Amino acid sequence: MIDRLVKAIEEKNNPSVIGLDPVFEMMPEEFIKKHKVLNPDTVADIYLEFNKNIIDAIYDIVPAVKPQIAMYETLGHFGIKAYEETVKYAKEKGLIVIGDVKRGDISSTAKAYASHINGIKIGNKIFDPWGVDAVTLAPYMGSDSIKPFLEACEKKDKGVFVLLKTSNESSSEIQDLIIDGEPLYMKVADLISDLGKDLIGESGFSKVGAVVGATKKEDGERLRKRLKNTFFLVPGYGAQGGTADDIAGFLTEDKKGIIVNSSRGVIFAYKKSGNSDFAAEARKAAIAMKKDLEKIG
Amino acid sequence: MIDRLVKAIEEKNNPSVIGLDPVFEMMPEEFIKKHKVLNPDTVADIYLEFNKNIIDAIYDIVPAVKPQIAMYETLGHFGIKAYEETVKYAKEKGLIVIGDVKRGDISSTAKAYASHINGIKIGNKIFDPWGVDAVTLAPYMGSDSIKPFLEACEKKDKGVFVLLKTSNESSSEIQDLIIDGEPLYMKVADLISDLGKDLIGESGFSKVGAVVGATKKEDGERLRKRLKNTFFLVPGYGAQGGTADDIAGFLTEDKKGIIVNSSRGVIFAYKKSGNSDFAAEARKAAIAMKKDLEKIG
Repeated sequence: MIDRLVKAIEEKNNPSVIGLDPVFEMMPEEFIKKHKVLNPDTVADIYLEFNKNIIDAIYDIVPAVKPQIAMYETLGHFGIKAYEETVKYAKEKGLIVIGDVKRGDISSTAKAYASHINGIKIGNKIFDPWGVDAVTLAPYMGSDSIKPFLEACEKKDKGVFVLLKTSNESSSEIQDLIIDGEPLYMKVADLISDLGKDLIGESGFSKVGAVVGATKKEDGERLRKRLKNTFFLVPGYGAQGGTADDIAGFLTEDKKGIIVNSSRGVIFAYKKSGNSDFAAEARKAAIAMKKDLEKIG
Repeated sequence: MIDRLVKAIEEKNNPSVIGLDPVFEMMPEEFIKKHKVLNPDTVADIYLEFNKNIIDAIYDIVPAVKPQIAMYETLGHFGIKAYEETVKYAKEKGLIVIGDVKRGDISSTAKAYASHINGIKIGNKIFDPWGVDAVTLAPYMGSDSIKPFLEACEKKDKGVFVLLKTSNESSSEIQDLIIDGEPLYMKVADLISDLGKDLIGESGFSKVGAVVGATKKEDGERLRKRLKNTFFLVPGYGAQGGTADDIAGFLTEDKKGIIVNSSRGVIFAYKKSGNSDFAAEARKAAIAMKKDLEKIG
């Protein structure tokens, strides 16, 4: 997965991933009007239709999309079905799909969560209800919560991105606590490096990547020094305040190793512009982001 | 929620919560035989039927159940539907339901995850696809990931249990790191205490509880000294190796403040006994657990 991602970024000359994070209040009027009744079932249809339009508008310029499962969970199983179908549609369009699920649990539960990239065996058949190429994971319970995913990384060419340093204010409450003279997240960095060391692909990057928020430049620089083979998924660009300049320090010496996420800044760009053609506005915003990121390349 | 839970524990004289964590390989032959085709859709039906039988067998003796959503996620949206219907059935039988979802994210995503206990507003209507009384949460991203849930705790009488100290071996990799002379989890304890201080009910316990694994007695004792008003959800009893003796130190001075979880040890007891009446065996195991826990009461 990581080699495919690196290749797709190079081919499209664009290290960006667009978050498919639908929110009811932001859906286009035209879609809402189509439905006589609004409930989790019909809103899930609206989310899927919205996503398909966004994907159609951007799939030729971006290498990857990242649906945030929380948005779909607001609608219960109807939303989860829309998530699954969004993933399927994005894959059909040749996009790499990162499921932003931030799961984290242990033993038999961790194995069950690993179905997100590993599928499930029922009798002699394997089913893969989720279909994503990679997922995000939470590290608080330690390596037990990550190891069950590594088999799928190896055997099915999948990937994981482990939460390392996030861009929110309260991330400091846990992640920045000082241990042996260093912030806690450096211990998580070592854990990620260790878990990923046998899963390094031809690109030089490991299938065990890290989530590193865009808003703190010095964190990114410090982490890149420690993690030469770790690919960074970088949220926090755009709506959350990060700029291309903040991100420059996250790159490896040969200007690789990151994919930058924007969600609302792209998919809801039409709300800012006032042009109701949301798909066209999303494409414009994705192109503007690509150009902005060229500064760091 | 916390007062209802404390009351239900007293009424049933039983501080235990049964995990409804179905696994395909453990399903009764008789249920599997009913289906000509086995796929995520039909297996989800099997899970739901299994759960209903378990609930029927135990609802008069236990105060609460805890479905582990990971098990349902293995089946995609079919599984999530079975999770929702399991919650609904358990509520109809008067049980308190703790959704073991361990979610953790920030800003608009955290708000979306809070729909697990807060529902979602679509137009002027509120929908509640999940229906649980409480959920478990992960703390790695700090208080930003927990605060969006507190409104539902207050206004809708719901609750949360934040991961504090877990019972798995690798939990030490992060949770036991030493900060200011104490393990990291004591910082999380302070965070939980702080977030919950304005949500203390008549029972003396806060709607912001903690997940504290059963296998390390000294951890529980240390945490109870620090957290007088925090209710502990204690996994790790039974299949994961914890005993009633390990748990004794987790209690408050008046022998309250915990609910102990067992999943496989109860719902799959029939596999050990060899008696195919899985519901009867689950009831027997739940009664044995109740008696075992009486030792500490």
